[in-house]
Amino acid sequence: VFDSELEHDAGDKGGYRHYMLKEIHEQPTVVRNTLQGRLGETDLVEGIFGAGSEDILKDIKHVQIIACGTSYHSGMTARYWLEQYANVSCNVEIASEFRYRKSVVHPNSLIVTISQSGETADTLAALRLAKQNGYKSSLTICNVPGSSLVRESDMAFMTLAGAEIGVASTKAFTTQLTAFLMLTLAIGKYNGMLAADKKAIIDGLHSLPTKLEETLTLTNGIEQLAEEFADKQHSLFLGRGDQYPIAMEGALKLKEISYIHAEAYASGELKHGPLALIDEEMPVIVVAPNNELLEKLKSNVEEVRARGGIMYVFADKEAQFASDETMRVINVPHCEAPIAPIVYTLPLQLLSYYVAVIKGTDVDQPRNLAKSVTVE
Amino acid sequence: VFDSELEHDAGDKGGYRHYMLKEIHEQPTVVRNTLQGRLGETDLVEGIFGAGSEDILKDIKHVQIIACGTSYHSGMTARYWLEQYANVSCNVEIASEFRYRKSVVHPNSLIVTISQSGETADTLAALRLAKQNGYKSSLTICNVPGSSLVRESDMAFMTLAGAEIGVASTKAFTTQLTAFLMLTLAIGKYNGMLAADKKAIIDGLHSLPTKLEETLTLTNGIEQLAEEFADKQHSLFLGRGDQYPIAMEGALKLKEISYIHAEAYASGELKHGPLALIDEEMPVIVVAPNNELLEKLKSNVEEVRARGGIMYVFADKEAQFASDETMRVINVPHCEAPIAPIVYTLPLQLLSYYVAVIKGTDVDQPRNLAKSVTVE
Repeated sequence: VFDSELEHDAGDKGGYRHYMLKEIHEQPTVVRNTLQGRLGETDLVEGIFGAGSEDILKDIKHVQIIACGTSYHSGMTARYWLEQYANVSCNVEIASEFRYRKSVVHPNSLIVTISQSGETADTLAALRLAKQNGYKSSLTICNVPGSSLVRESDMAFMTLAGAEIGVASTKAFTTQLTAFLMLTLAIGKYNGMLAADKKAIIDGLHSLPTKLEETLTLTNGIEQLAEEFADKQHSLFLGRGDQYPIAMEGALKLKEISYIHAEAYASGELKHGPLALIDEEMPVIVVAPNNELLEKLKSNVEEVRARGGIMYVFADKEAQFASDETMRVINVPHCEAPIAPIVYTLPLQLLSYYVAVIKGTDVDQPRNLAKSVTVE
Repeated sequence: VFDSELEHDAGDKGGYRHYMLKEIHEQPTVVRNTLQGRLGETDLVEGIFGAGSEDILKDIKHVQIIACGTSYHSGMTARYWLEQYANVSCNVEIASEFRYRKSVVHPNSLIVTISQSGETADTLAALRLAKQNGYKSSLTICNVPGSSLVRESDMAFMTLAGAEIGVASTKAFTTQLTAFLMLTLAIGKYNGMLAADKKAIIDGLHSLPTKLEETLTLTNGIEQLAEEFADKQHSLFLGRGDQYPIAMEGALKLKEISYIHAEAYASGELKHGPLALIDEEMPVIVVAPNNELLEKLKSNVEEVRARGGIMYVFADKEAQFASDETMRVINVPHCEAPIAPIVYTLPLQLLSYYVAVIKGTDVDQPRNLAKSVTVE
């Protein structure tokens, strides 16, 4: 039931130079697969989180998300969505932290684990601990049917990303985010979600595969941009709100496959420390700012202009930001606000990919990393 | 009432080469000042958070902490303490994130702001927002009497760190942590805190000034260690549990004054990405591991040994870890578990300081940074 048609192709690169590039380009298709049969024209299909799930979700007042690595970043994004749109509180924690400490469980809490493989050791251990601690129910968002997390959770939502071969996760991440927007609808329904927010999410999800296709046409510009990063040792990624975790994920990708020391910060923290690091050797990447944020950042970075600090800004085409001496703007297709974090993920994936190719690293098998971290 | 005797010395460096070094060495004294008259022999003095504070604290079931930069790290540490010892749930958020998003307020929530100056623009804006959002009460932990945060909060707890001149915060941070351990006692009292935990915190706090004095004797060893960092561009700091935020603070200090790109990770996340970065050019600093953690880390780092990856481990003297080819151990005095994050902060401050001195940076006035970030 959960098999994606894409799995038939898992063994070859389908004409792409690397699995990772193939998987980046599969995203419009696999996001469409993940939505299919689950999202109706004006509403979510009932019960898509499994038999009895509506009865569970209607009582949920708090969501505790547990994950590692890239999956942790999808959980962090979901937290912004669940609090803003679904009116429930949400915490997100790294599995290896959660499992080794005593935490307090809110009433009517749902524990959500996220893992591509469903076998991540720390996440599984965290779920087992949580089940002893009085959570109302458990849900896993996972890409592998029959995996340990799926078997041990009350509810399972399968991302239909198909087999992901590249060690650096791409399509698993964007399908996780797609799943979380549907979870936001499913929980928001019982918690007074605003009609306008609901419509923005549903319209956004319907348009998402097409927006992702449009975004992939940025490839040429990003390939060029990658040239400017290939000789750098450092990079700073900035984002605010639901784009902050996307900045984190962008930095992680660059680390994983390009071995460039990239770090993400919430934009507002720039002046509380990292600004000391910025010079011409440390490019700053800014994700999807609104006007207000960008003006503040420009005045911050103005200070380091003398030392050659430069910003690369991924921004809404319709915002019409102009490039200047300290700022290069890369236009991203305009989209509904709730799906923007998913859309902006793609150019950052492409940037990491092309930097890695220029540097000649082993893109699909970066040094020291394993696809599924099944040890602690 | 809140004036520390140290303020009389604020204008000179008291024989130290930099204000920062003076302030590092003042920590035993200012922590003692912060405890004085507030911590009795076997219990906290009642009402130390202000008139009527007991009536407020007895009903608190959730703590929302808001801060920026170094103060954010003290809040993150407090979260581990409040959940583990005081049995209340706790969230910590960067002020610039909190103020620009919609969040959900738990019943009987206390909002706690932290700021050395009491004038941090984002933190103040976040407090003002929170006051409209239904928090039960507000507390600020602050070093400047009469500051905006103090005036606008229901309760104020003054850290008696004296004037802090160095832009990179040191003694403000450790006195904030001291304040948070007292807050943990004050809230835990009404939430079934275990007698053994209470005793460990109180005994720990009583011993804290002496432990900090002992820890400062590590100076010579750390000055030597600093030589090995001065030519590095990168560094990775690892910690787990209540030492994870201390690793973050250690990395921030190194960034701020040495301009070395230091980044912190929760130890368990190493295999989920950053491991790809480690080679001889990226030393790894580990804070206060327990045995189990260290064994896991050793097996992780074993993989990169061939490329010269090396760990520097700050560890309990009594744990008797042995240095070997991939691991250099720096012994830190044994102490009660609850105060360990405060104790382990000092060697990391000293490391940053001595690296900065070797590099010849402007230690007290690092480039691009301001002491109080009163703009957004």
